[in-house]
Amino acid sequence: MGAAKFLRGLLRIADPSALTIIVNTGDDERFFGLAVSPDLDTITYTLADRANGRTGWGLAGDTFACLDALRRFYADCGWFHLGDRDLATHIFRTERLARGVRLSRVTAEICRRLGVGARILPATDDRLRTVLDTALGRLSLQDYLVRRRGRPAVRAIRYLGARRARPAPGVVRAIRDASAVIIAPSNPFLSIGPMLRIPGIRRALTARRGVVAISPIVGGRAVSGPLARLLRRFDLPISPAGVAACYRPFVDTMVVDRRDRGERGALAALGCRTIVSDTVFISPDRAARTARQLMAAIA
Amino acid sequence: MGAAKFLRGLLRIADPSALTIIVNTGDDERFFGLAVSPDLDTITYTLADRANGRTGWGLAGDTFACLDALRRFYADCGWFHLGDRDLATHIFRTERLARGVRLSRVTAEICRRLGVGARILPATDDRLRTVLDTALGRLSLQDYLVRRRGRPAVRAIRYLGARRARPAPGVVRAIRDASAVIIAPSNPFLSIGPMLRIPGIRRALTARRGVVAISPIVGGRAVSGPLARLLRRFDLPISPAGVAACYRPFVDTMVVDRRDRGERGALAALGCRTIVSDTVFISPDRAARTARQLMAAIA
Repeated sequence: MGAAKFLRGLLRIADPSALTIIVNTGDDERFFGLAVSPDLDTITYTLADRANGRTGWGLAGDTFACLDALRRFYADCGWFHLGDRDLATHIFRTERLARGVRLSRVTAEICRRLGVGARILPATDDRLRTVLDTALGRLSLQDYLVRRRGRPAVRAIRYLGARRARPAPGVVRAIRDASAVIIAPSNPFLSIGPMLRIPGIRRALTARRGVVAISPIVGGRAVSGPLARLLRRFDLPISPAGVAACYRPFVDTMVVDRRDRGERGALAALGCRTIVSDTVFISPDRAARTARQLMAAIA
Repeated sequence: MGAAKFLRGLLRIADPSALTIIVNTGDDERFFGLAVSPDLDTITYTLADRANGRTGWGLAGDTFACLDALRRFYADCGWFHLGDRDLATHIFRTERLARGVRLSRVTAEICRRLGVGARILPATDDRLRTVLDTALGRLSLQDYLVRRRGRPAVRAIRYLGARRARPAPGVVRAIRDASAVIIAPSNPFLSIGPMLRIPGIRRALTARRGVVAISPIVGGRAVSGPLARLLRRFDLPISPAGVAACYRPFVDTMVVDRRDRGERGALAALGCRTIVSDTVFISPDRAARTARQLMAAIA
């Protein structure tokens, strides 16, 4: 959500063809046998200007006739909302993957058909799954986050397959050659973490400078989701410094909200310089202003 | 279509739990990677009283948002209409088949969820595909019938897999033990033919008496579809006798429309007795009257 909101602003000031967006696949999951990639789709729909801005997932104006009919066949399917038009994306992806086409290629096909100008890359074409060991047992990311609303107490987070996963074609080069790498204001455990556990991605990030992260913690609270609880669980402060700690050693700049300007010292202690801006993207205009400031500071 | 219309009538006078309906799978096809069984679905939806009676396929009141979105991904997908609620059936079937569940089992599951009282059996769980060698090359049944509207000149009809296909569980016993076997007024080449090419089914039919067929030819014309052209192509008369010839040697009774009462002699020459009735099922009431007359004549 935070990532999508930031991207909407960034696209107002940047040339889409100059952007590569590397997206988490750790929450990909099969629903009804269909290959659903929630993060890829949110980003793709956002960049196609077709996202449902109100809910943060799915397509604007979508209907739910198929899901409604699926309830006859699946007792427990009400919690993950797949719209009729959204389903077309999953049906297409499932069919292409079954033919042996790689996820990165399918993603490019989807982007082309939806008129997305920027390049969207899944972090990996290999199997990567974020699972949470919780008080309720092991849960997939979507089960934990959507169905259980991020409430179960988390004992451990596992990124299954990450260690053997290879970065998708283009990912390492994009990280290496970009004038800047921006880590969007997302959950460092659930949205960014899975990608950082891929050795090739971690190496590429560590090998360069100019890795900027936008803090998803503002005024001691997470902008959305269970991030505050997870930082506490892993004994990290609920602050930009807590987030920066997740991105060591490669992050060198943190973008924090005005109300967190006092965090400068804590961030300096972690070796990070601080950019103070607006990081609660209540509108694309607000996000565009922050993006412009960010680009200027990086240049 | 003719089969569905007859069944609607039959169900008004018969106990559904006493009926077993054996259905063609030769026109099953993958669309967008989804396992679609057009004949099974038409029969299932009809018996669930959810069929779209106007079009002859799909669910009443269905919408087409997903198909509309699929057009972005597939250049050539407009000709086979899959509604949003109909898609739920295909998604469920595809997922179950992928898990290794047999089509007959999945069909039973679908019937149970849709509240169908009669037993619907696919002719076989094995792969069976009707293809037509035409002036346009080899076409699948749906491609020929739906997309090309049955127009291309047919050179040969092939039932791929039929010779090795085994009847689905319950099929042979149903044929053997039924008080009567009724072949619905369907196309003997495209709808019934594929089933008759399965050796186990042909054997079961040939081993018993009381196999009744309702003629899909009325007044020298096919009630629907390209049947007249196919009879001509295979040098058979466009008449109930032409249909009966397709069902030799096991058919012993033909049900013909009043206007075909003059066919009695030709049918007797083929060893068939004739029941004269109304066979153009313009309403379920009409079909019920014919069904009642038919059951009385059989008993």
